Amino acid sequence: MLVSALLTSVGINSGLCVLFFTLYSILRKQPSNYDVYIPRLLVEGTSTRRSGFNLERLIPSPGWVRRAWKLSEEELLSSSGLDAVVFMRIITFCLKVFLVAGIIGIFVLLPVNCTGDQLEDVDFVDFSNNSLDVFTISNVASGSKRLWVHFCAVYIVTVFVCCLLYYEYKYISSKRIAYFLSSKPQPHQFTILVRSIPVSAGSSISDSINSFFTEYHPSTYLSHLVVRRTNKLRSLINDAKKYYKRIIQLQSNPTQRSHGCFNCFGLFSRNVDLVDHYEKKLEDIEENVRLEQSEVSLAGEEIHAAFVSFKSRYGAAIAFHLQQSTNPTQWVTEQAPEPHDVYWPFFSSSFIRRWISKLVVIVACILLTILFLIPVVVVQGLTNLSQLEGWFPFLESLLTITFVSEVITGYLPSLILMLFLKTVPPVMELLSSIQGYVSHSGIERSACDKVLWFTIWNIFFATVFSGSVLYQVSIFLEPSNIPSKLAVSVPAQASFFIAYVVTSGWTSASSELFRLVPLVWSLIRKPCTKIKDDELEVPSIPYHRDIPRLLFFGLLGITYFFLAPLILPFLLVYFCFGYIIYRNQFINVYAPRYETAGKFWPTVHNSMIFSLILMHAIAVGIFTLKKLSVASTLIFPLAILTLLFNEYCRKRFLPVFTAYPAEVCLKVLHCKTLSQGGSKFSYFFPHPLYSLLEFNTITAFKSCTLTLTLAFILSEFDKERQGRRE
Amino acid sequence: MLVSALLTSVGINSGLCVLFFTLYSILRKQPSNYDVYIPRLLVEGTSTRRSGFNLERLIPSPGWVRRAWKLSEEELLSSSGLDAVVFMRIITFCLKVFLVAGIIGIFVLLPVNCTGDQLEDVDFVDFSNNSLDVFTISNVASGSKRLWVHFCAVYIVTVFVCCLLYYEYKYISSKRIAYFLSSKPQPHQFTILVRSIPVSAGSSISDSINSFFTEYHPSTYLSHLVVRRTNKLRSLINDAKKYYKRIIQLQSNPTQRSHGCFNCFGLFSRNVDLVDHYEKKLEDIEENVRLEQSEVSLAGEEIHAAFVSFKSRYGAAIAFHLQQSTNPTQWVTEQAPEPHDVYWPFFSSSFIRRWISKLVVIVACILLTILFLIPVVVVQGLTNLSQLEGWFPFLESLLTITFVSEVITGYLPSLILMLFLKTVPPVMELLSSIQGYVSHSGIERSACDKVLWFTIWNIFFATVFSGSVLYQVSIFLEPSNIPSKLAVSVPAQASFFIAYVVTSGWTSASSELFRLVPLVWSLIRKPCTKIKDDELEVPSIPYHRDIPRLLFFGLLGITYFFLAPLILPFLLVYFCFGYIIYRNQFINVYAPRYETAGKFWPTVHNSMIFSLILMHAIAVGIFTLKKLSVASTLIFPLAILTLLFNEYCRKRFLPVFTAYPAEVCLKVLHCKTLSQGGSKFSYFFPHPLYSLLEFNTITAFKSCTLTLTLAFILSEFDKERQGRRE
Repeated sequence: MLVSALLTSVGINSGLCVLFFTLYSILRKQPSNYDVYIPRLLVEGTSTRRSGFNLERLIPSPGWVRRAWKLSEEELLSSSGLDAVVFMRIITFCLKVFLVAGIIGIFVLLPVNCTGDQLEDVDFVDFSNNSLDVFTISNVASGSKRLWVHFCAVYIVTVFVCCLLYYEYKYISSKRIAYFLSSKPQPHQFTILVRSIPVSAGSSISDSINSFFTEYHPSTYLSHLVVRRTNKLRSLINDAKKYYKRIIQLQSNPTQRSHGCFNCFGLFSRNVDLVDHYEKKLEDIEENVRLEQSEVSLAGEEIHAAFVSFKSRYGAAIAFHLQQSTNPTQWVTEQAPEPHDVYWPFFSSSFIRRWISKLVVIVACILLTILFLIPVVVVQGLTNLSQLEGWFPFLESLLTITFVSEVITGYLPSLILMLFLKTVPPVMELLSSIQGYVSHSGIERSACDKVLWFTIWNIFFATVFSGSVLYQVSIFLEPSNIPSKLAVSVPAQASFFIAYVVTSGWTSASSELFRLVPLVWSLIRKPCTKIKDDELEVPSIPYHRDIPRLLFFGLLGITYFFLAPLILPFLLVYFCFGYIIYRNQFINVYAPRYETAGKFWPTVHNSMIFSLILMHAIAVGIFTLKKLSVASTLIFPLAILTLLFNEYCRKRFLPVFTAYPAEVCLKVLHCKTLSQGGSKFSYFFPHPLYSLLEFNTITAFKSCTLTLTLAFILSEFDKERQGRRE
Repeated sequence: MLVSALLTSVGINSGLCVLFFTLYSILRKQPSNYDVYIPRLLVEGTSTRRSGFNLERLIPSPGWVRRAWKLSEEELLSSSGLDAVVFMRIITFCLKVFLVAGIIGIFVLLPVNCTGDQLEDVDFVDFSNNSLDVFTISNVASGSKRLWVHFCAVYIVTVFVCCLLYYEYKYISSKRIAYFLSSKPQPHQFTILVRSIPVSAGSSISDSINSFFTEYHPSTYLSHLVVRRTNKLRSLINDAKKYYKRIIQLQSNPTQRSHGCFNCFGLFSRNVDLVDHYEKKLEDIEENVRLEQSEVSLAGEEIHAAFVSFKSRYGAAIAFHLQQSTNPTQWVTEQAPEPHDVYWPFFSSSFIRRWISKLVVIVACILLTILFLIPVVVVQGLTNLSQLEGWFPFLESLLTITFVSEVITGYLPSLILMLFLKTVPPVMELLSSIQGYVSHSGIERSACDKVLWFTIWNIFFATVFSGSVLYQVSIFLEPSNIPSKLAVSVPAQASFFIAYVVTSGWTSASSELFRLVPLVWSLIRKPCTKIKDDELEVPSIPYHRDIPRLLFFGLLGITYFFLAPLILPFLLVYFCFGYIIYRNQFINVYAPRYETAGKFWPTVHNSMIFSLILMHAIAVGIFTLKKLSVASTLIFPLAILTLLFNEYCRKRFLPVFTAYPAEVCLKVLHCKTLSQGGSKFSYFFPHPLYSLLEFNTITAFKSCTLTLTLAFILSEFDKERQGRRE
C-alpha cells in the first residue's frame, strides 16, 4: 500500500469521525432523540425532555466529552457495576500497553526499519507499490545486527504486558471480593440450581429433594422450589403486568379514565370506566392462574430440577462444591443465577441430554468458525452484475452507468461480508444458550469467547493465510511449520491491518457513539407508536460483541508492534476514542442487565496471553527467515516463561472467579447475621423471584419480564384496591 | 522372522518356564527359603518352618497352583485390599478382551490373511525371510474386499472393550464406595493436610491455624498438629523401637539374658544383664527425646504446614473442597494420607517452591522419556570387544575364543539395555516424590503413569520408528502424517513384538514367581546375619513396575490383534501365567503397604483408551495404504465415539476416585456416630499417629517405621516395667 493511499484513508475516516461527533453533539440535544441517546437518564428520571427551543440546541458542544472524561471509577462502579469497570479497564490496559509499545516502536524501531536497505536491494519488490513496507521489519537486511533491537523490544514489551496483566488480575480479583463483601444479601447467593434429581417411584420430586437435603445438609438447608414448565403462565404474567401498569397510569391521569372503545371495528363505541375494565381483566387472570397452576401440578409438568436455598452463603457454597451423590450424573449442582438473569430457552434437566447438546454446539461452533467464509464467498460470487440484472430487471438501465456499476461491484462484496459478520454475535449467543447456560450472563460470557476465536480465525488467520480453508487447517496440523509460515505471511499483511484499524476500528467507535441503527429505528417507529419515558427499554451493552472487538485490536497491536510499528498510533487513537465514547455510553445509554462481578476478565487475560504467544511464534519465524537463528532460539524461553506466567495466574487468581472462597462467604455472614435477622431477610425466602421462572424449549424470549412475578403484581394490585376502598 | 525361529524361541522359553515352575515347586518347600517365597505367611504366623526332612520336599507339586486358582475375590479383598483386587482385575480384563479378540483373530482374520496373495506377487519381499508375514494383514491384497473383515473386527473389538471398560469402571467404583462404607473410622479420613499457612507477626503457626479454623469451620473443627522438622527424633525413635523389641525378646527367652559383650573390640567381655542394659538405654532416649522436643519447639523448627482434624468425615470433605482463602496459594488443602503411608523426603510447604519443583520434574520426566535411549546406545557402543580388552587386559585370551566373543557381543548390549530399564521404576518413583506427593501411594500412582508412558515411548515407538530421537519427535509434530507413518512401520515389527511377548513377557512372569534376586540376596545374606521370622520385612508389590508392564502387553495385544492375530495366543498364555502367579504371590509374598481403594483403575482405563485410539490410527493408515479409503474414513467416527465414551466415563466415574461424595461421607457418619461415641474413637484424636511424622529433605527413607510413635513405645515400655515391678 502506498503511503498516500493510507493518508487518504486516514483523511476520509478522520473526516467521518469529526462528522459523526459533530452530528452526535447536535442530535443528542434534540428532545425527540433523547430515547436514542440518553435512554438511561430518561428512565432514571435524571433528565426530562425540554420542550422549549433555543439556539444552543443547534450548536455542537464538547460538554459530553468533559463529563465522560471526569467520570471516576467509583462512580462507574456504583452506576454500571463491576462489569462496566472491567470493560473500561480493558481499554485503559490497551492504552497503557500501546503507549509503551508505541514509544518503543515509533522512536526506536521505526528509525531502525527506515534506515534498513533490504527492500532497495531486492529487485522483485515493486518499491513504488509497497512504500509502506519501508517502515516494517521487512526493510531490515537479513542477518543484520539491527534485528537485535527488535529482539529486545519483544522481550521488553512481553515483560511489560505480563506485569500489567498480573496487576490487573490482582486488582480485579480484589475488586470482585470487595464487591461481594459490600453487596447486600441476594437470593441467588443463597441458592443453588440442582438438576438430574432422581425420583423413586411413588414420591414426588419435591419430596425427594426435601428428604435428600434434610438428610445430607440438615443444618443449612432452608427450602426449595421445583422448576416447572409454565409456558402458558408466562403470557398471563405479561398480560397482568400490562394491565396493572395501565391501571396505575389511568389513576394518575383521571381525565383519561372513561375514554375508549371496546369493540372490534370501532363501530359501536361506548364509554366505559377503563379502570374497572382492567381490574376485571386482572381478576380473570388471577382466577386463570389459580386454575393453571393447579393444572400444571396435576399434569405433572414439574421437571427434575430445582432451586434449593440454604440458610447461609456458606451452606450454598458447600452444597455447590461437594459432589452430592455417588453417581456424579445425579444431583448435579451449579450456582444459581440472579433471578432476573435467568434465561433458559433450551433448559434440560437430563445430564446426558445436556452433555450431548454441549458437544453438538461445540462441533457446530468449530464448523461455523472454520467454514464461515465459504458461504460468504459463494454469496459474494452470486451477486455479480449480470445476476443482479436478472433478479431486478428494472435496474438494467441504472447498472449500465459505469460509476454505479463500479460502486456496486466494489462495495457489494464487502457489504455482504459485513452483514454476515453482524449476524455472528447473535448466532453465537443462540449457540451458547443451546449449550446449556442458564443465565444471560453465562450465555454472553460463553458467546464472548466464541466470537473472539471466530474473529481471530476469520479476520486474522483468513487474511494472513489467504487461501482455501483446507490450506488454513492444514497449517495448524503441522505445528512445527507454523512460525515459518507466519513469518512469511504476517508482515505481508501489515498495510492491510493498518488500514483495517483506521477504517473498521475508527468507524465502529464513532458509530457506537452515533447509534445509527437505533436512531433510524426510532425515526421509523416514532410516527406509529408513542412510548412513555418510563416504558422505554434501556439497552444493555452487548459485551459479547464489543469485548471481542477490543481484544482483536489488542491482538493486532501486540502481534504487529515489532513488525510494523506504524500501526500503533492508529490503535492509540482508536482506544482513545473508545475510552471517551464507552464512558459516555455507560453514563447515558446502557444500563447493566446483570452483574457477573468481573467474570469477563479471565477471557481478556487469556486473549492477551494468546496474543503474546502468537507474537513470539511470528518472532521465531521472522528471525529464522532473517538468518538470525540465535535470536529465534532465544525467543523460545520467553514463550515458555509467558505460558508459565499464565499457568501461575490461573492458579493464583482464577479460583476466585469461579467461586467465592470460604473466608469471604463467612465474612459476609459475620457482618450480616442471617440466622438472627431471619425476619429482616425473610423477603428472600422462599424467594418469590424464583417462583415463576420458566422455560420454553422452542422459542427464545428476549424480554426481562420473567423476573416480575405474578404474585407480586397481584398483591400490589390488591393493596392498591384496598387502599382505594378505604 | 521365520516361523521356525519363532518356534525355537517359544520352545526355549517354554522350557525355561517349566524349569522355573519346577524349581519353584521344590525350592518353596525348603524351610531355608521360606523367607523368600512365603514371607507373608511367616510373619502372619500361619506357616512355621518345618525342620523335619521328608522326601515330599524334593518332589515338585502343583498344590500352590490349585490354592492360587481357588482364591476368591472376597478372600483377596480381605487379605490384600482393594488395590490387589484391581490389580487382578487388570489381568482378568485383558484375558477377557484377548479371548474374544483371539477367537476373532485366529478363526476369522488368520485364515483371511493366510489366503491372501499380496506377498507372493511382490518380488522384493524375501519370502523365505518373512514367512511370519504371511499371517499378517500385509498378505492381503491392496483394495481387496477382504479388508472389510478386518474393518468389522476393529469395530467389534472396540465396542467389546468399551463395554467391558464401562462395566469394570462401574464395578470398581461401586467396590470403592463399598470399601469406604465398610471401613472403620480411620484418622486420615477425618484429617486434611494444610500447607502455605500465613502467619501474622507475633503469633505462632498453631495460633493462626486455631483462629482460622475456629472462625471459618467452628462446628466441625477438632484439632490440629503442626508439621515439624524432626530429623534427629527419627533416629531416636528407631533406636527405641529396636531396644524395646530386644527387651521383649530377652524376656521371652530368659536363657539369653546375661550373654553378650559390650565393648568395642570384644577384648574386655563381661557378662551383664541385657534387659537392664536395654532399659537404661531406653530411659536415656526418653530423656533425650524430651530435651529434643523442647529444643525443636524452641528452635522454631515448625513449618507452615499442619494436619487439621475435624469431627466428621463430612467436615474434612468440606474443608478439602472449599477454597479457604481469598488468595488460593494460601491455606492449600489436600486429603491427608494414611499415617503409615506418609512419605515426604522432599516436603515443602511453600506453594511456589512446590509448583516449581513440579514443573522441573515434569520437564525432567519428558526429557528422560524422550532421550533415554541416547545414553543407552552410547554405553552399548562403548562396550565393544576392543574396549573391553583395554579395560580388562586379563580377559584378552578369553575374548579370542569365538564362542565367548559372540556371546558377549550378542548379549552385552541387551544386558545393558535391561539394566538401564530396571533403573527406570525407581528413578520415576524418586521423581514423583520430588514432584510433591506426600504418600507412598500417591508417589507410586504417579510413578505408574510415568513408567507406562516411558514404556510405550521407549519400547513401542522406539521400535516402530527406529531412527533418531529427533525423527521420532518430528513425527509427533506433524499429527496429520502419524497414521500413514504408523501404517508403514507398525506391521513391519509384528514378528519382533510376538517374540517380545514370548521372551520378555513369559520370562518376566516366571521370574516374578521364582523371585531370583531376593533368592540370591537371601542366599548371600543368610550366612552373615540371622533374622527372626517376625523381624522379616514383608515386601509390598511394586505396582509402579508391574501395572505398566501388564498395560503395555495390553497395548500390544489391542494394536496388533487385527494386524497380526498370531500375537494373541502368546499374550493369552502370558496373562494366564500372570493370573496364577500374581494370585500366588498375593497369598504368600506380598502384604499391602497402603490402600488407595482402587485409585489405580483410572490409569488402566486411560491406557486402554489410548491403545484403542492408537489402534484406530493404525487402522486408518493401513486402510489408506491398502487403497480402501472408504474404510479408513469410516474408522474416524469410531475413534471419535471412543473419545466421547472416555469423556463420558470421566464425568460418570472419575469424581468418585478423587474424593468421596457427600452422600457417602454422611452415610458412614450415620452408621457410626462419632459425635456420640467420642470416647470410643478418642483413640484417633489428637491422632498420635500423625504426631511424629517427619521429613528429611536430603535422604529418602525406605522403612515403614514412621508409623510407630515413640510415645506408644515408651508407654508400652512403662506399662511392661510396672507389670514386672508388681
